[in-house]
Amino acid sequence: MNYRMISYYIGRILLIEALLLALPALCAVIYGENTLLSFALTIAALTVTGLIAVRKKPTKTTIYAKEGYVIVALTWILMSLFGALPFYISGHIPSFTDAFFETVSGFTTTGSTILRSVEAMPKSLLFWRSFTHWIGGMGILVFVIAIMPKAENSSMHVMRAEVPGPTVGKLVSKLRASARILYGIYCALTAIQVVMLLAGRMPLFDSLVNSFATAGTGGFAVLNNSIEGYNSVYSEMVIAVFMLLFGVNFNLYYMFIVKQGKQAIKSEELRWYAGIVATAVIIIAISLYTTKHDGLAESFRYAFFQVASIITTTGFSTTNFNTWPVITKFVLLFLMFVGACAGSTGGGIKVSRLVILIKSGLRDIKKSINPRSIETVKIDKRTVEEPVVKSVSVFFATYMLVIAVSILVVSLDGFNFESTATAVVACISNIGPGFGAVGPYGNFADFSMLSKLTLSFTMLAGRLELIPMLMLFSPYAWAKKYS
Amino acid sequence: MNYRMISYYIGRILLIEALLLALPALCAVIYGENTLLSFALTIAALTVTGLIAVRKKPTKTTIYAKEGYVIVALTWILMSLFGALPFYISGHIPSFTDAFFETVSGFTTTGSTILRSVEAMPKSLLFWRSFTHWIGGMGILVFVIAIMPKAENSSMHVMRAEVPGPTVGKLVSKLRASARILYGIYCALTAIQVVMLLAGRMPLFDSLVNSFATAGTGGFAVLNNSIEGYNSVYSEMVIAVFMLLFGVNFNLYYMFIVKQGKQAIKSEELRWYAGIVATAVIIIAISLYTTKHDGLAESFRYAFFQVASIITTTGFSTTNFNTWPVITKFVLLFLMFVGACAGSTGGGIKVSRLVILIKSGLRDIKKSINPRSIETVKIDKRTVEEPVVKSVSVFFATYMLVIAVSILVVSLDGFNFESTATAVVACISNIGPGFGAVGPYGNFADFSMLSKLTLSFTMLAGRLELIPMLMLFSPYAWAKKYS
Repeated sequence: MNYRMISYYIGRILLIEALLLALPALCAVIYGENTLLSFALTIAALTVTGLIAVRKKPTKTTIYAKEGYVIVALTWILMSLFGALPFYISGHIPSFTDAFFETVSGFTTTGSTILRSVEAMPKSLLFWRSFTHWIGGMGILVFVIAIMPKAENSSMHVMRAEVPGPTVGKLVSKLRASARILYGIYCALTAIQVVMLLAGRMPLFDSLVNSFATAGTGGFAVLNNSIEGYNSVYSEMVIAVFMLLFGVNFNLYYMFIVKQGKQAIKSEELRWYAGIVATAVIIIAISLYTTKHDGLAESFRYAFFQVASIITTTGFSTTNFNTWPVITKFVLLFLMFVGACAGSTGGGIKVSRLVILIKSGLRDIKKSINPRSIETVKIDKRTVEEPVVKSVSVFFATYMLVIAVSILVVSLDGFNFESTATAVVACISNIGPGFGAVGPYGNFADFSMLSKLTLSFTMLAGRLELIPMLMLFSPYAWAKKYS
Repeated sequence: MNYRMISYYIGRILLIEALLLALPALCAVIYGENTLLSFALTIAALTVTGLIAVRKKPTKTTIYAKEGYVIVALTWILMSLFGALPFYISGHIPSFTDAFFETVSGFTTTGSTILRSVEAMPKSLLFWRSFTHWIGGMGILVFVIAIMPKAENSSMHVMRAEVPGPTVGKLVSKLRASARILYGIYCALTAIQVVMLLAGRMPLFDSLVNSFATAGTGGFAVLNNSIEGYNSVYSEMVIAVFMLLFGVNFNLYYMFIVKQGKQAIKSEELRWYAGIVATAVIIIAISLYTTKHDGLAESFRYAFFQVASIITTTGFSTTNFNTWPVITKFVLLFLMFVGACAGSTGGGIKVSRLVILIKSGLRDIKKSINPRSIETVKIDKRTVEEPVVKSVSVFFATYMLVIAVSILVVSLDGFNFESTATAVVACISNIGPGFGAVGPYGNFADFSMLSKLTLSFTMLAGRLELIPMLMLFSPYAWAKKYS
């Protein structure tokens, strides 16, 4: 294990976090809030720690896969630990566990909150909270690669560990250029959303933080009633559409830029994604309408927003879907598992993995029928290599095992069946709200410390797609023999 | 597709079912019940249909994998359709859908019931109901192979489709001899249990039917309160131990017979099975005790019985575990998924599949850490071949997809979250009761016809391990091109 390189890498990231904290600090100045000191102290702590870590330039800069995973896991944990300080020091979240949970929830773009009243918080803290979504959405390490003067080739391992999806490719031959393109698209889309929300007369502050939360597919709101609080169909639709846009594989946007738009639209994952969204909206809207829950137009409006919010794993709400008919809840639960497209800012298992799972299931049935048939799983008319097919299935099984173990721990708190199960699923898939006590009108405040830490782990495991977090507990990873 | 051979095979099975129905008919004579006519009519219908089907001896007796699956799937569906007749004709279950559901639940050894009061049923029907568990437990086709004059080698395909587990081996070189050994062990164990229950002063009728339900890991009871109704710790413990015994891979018993007992005890699956049972008992007992639900001895007694009942997918109960603390429910839910050992009469995913899933998950983590590591998944110190590892993962994913789709259909009935989800899991894993409305004190009577048919399909899919049932819906299987 190249410890010096790991420390150097993480040190640089902490310095960047210090820089990023300048924005909420500025916010505190503008609104004249007394949170300024807590931001200043956090920035100081980050700067000192960061400078110590980067003091010695490593002589060997090579990074292997293992170091890549360690860097990613430790980065996300440390960023959250430091990122929790402003909430804790300012006294607005008196428990450090709670502050840590909230920050992990932010960076992992989950959006589960322990706050009973969001509106009671100072604006600068709300800004920081939503800004963590934006930072975590595209990935802090991708950001580092984008701005690094000389992106070593070995950084590919880092990028692979942080960008979601079964396979990760570079857009262009240079890694740094790829990372810059991704961040460019990300910034541009966010900016357009801010402008469109402003056009609907949403206040600047709200437009900014809601766009951060949409872009990262996070879901932290600044009103107690989430997006419902604005009572504006226009804003709802803008946010719903942008949630869906941020749930698309960013590579497709790049293809549009380089005039391969036709090919992008043909993407199989995109079509499945659109198909799942459409089917879910129709089922839910019909269910809401036939149970006389809402009128026809309202039914579609609520269904569209909620489906967009859940499949992209954002977690905004425009109504209390916890009181919806049970079939709609299971459709939403299914979407929670599916999640968004690979290479987007969304969480969950990812549409492409689901497609691979379904196709390999069908293939196995065919193979049972006719043992001599030789058939491969194909996506976009290209064969998915067998190791990828296998690792996707194993990923899914591991995902379910992590859910099972987490549920067992969280169930110690004695919440009911529905609340316990969906709290864990909402965390691992980085959604935010679940059903029951953790529904859109509820929060995670009443869980025990143990559950909050477990759920924090689950959120990180979901965001980083299991391996970096599970590795931390694997004796194999730390064995001298392999270092 | 060799239709004539399929018809010949199924015809013989229907004739055997006619023979088996003589037992409950005898029971009707002994107890002087007016159900005799309904049994006689069913036997007549089976005999006529069976004779028509076997009229023409097929010239080509070869069976390929595809025919094997078709035979298994159609056999189980037809046996259930005919087996439902006595309930329906006698008028004791007025709806044919209900009678079909009950019979499928019997043959698949699920034990979910639509009866609101079991005790109100005539003894002969109760006998038939529990006897279906015994027939379905080891598999009707395995039985056919055991008694067939000349078990064709191609019957291996049939056996493979019916015996649960990721891999199926013959015990001895002759298939018929293997099937006979399996049925010999099955009968012997059942007989011992009957004697032991009689020794505890359980009435003969109850000893018989409860042993049938235990042996098949079915769980249909003849008292409204299941095993709780006997109020006898001795009977409870006998049943609990036998449930666990019937959940063990029968190959291990054969190893004992041929004096390879030491090797049998070393079986990795057996150790995992024992380990999971012990862990679950301890967690549940502690939870019951600390929440002051029961005293220490009672806590262990209830925990032991319920864990044995659920992991073996039997479904008997000695208390209303629906009111237990939520953590115990999640432990039980986890056991519902796991199920018993491969090659036993139990359902679920099977312990060996879980072990393969866990080991391949760990292997993938290691591989991510060190991409050059070459490691294979091993069970009993032997390498599990890669196609098996992959098919286990795909099996698991398909299992979850079938659950997801079934839940969506069943959720149309508007039962709550817990009841809907566990009804489906209890059916696919062939347990019987779930939680909530389908808990140990509840039943499946209030589900809609659509849900009952869906759940019947789910039970069959679970018992036959997916492929035979899913194949029926696969256009590929019926395409002329491949027949």
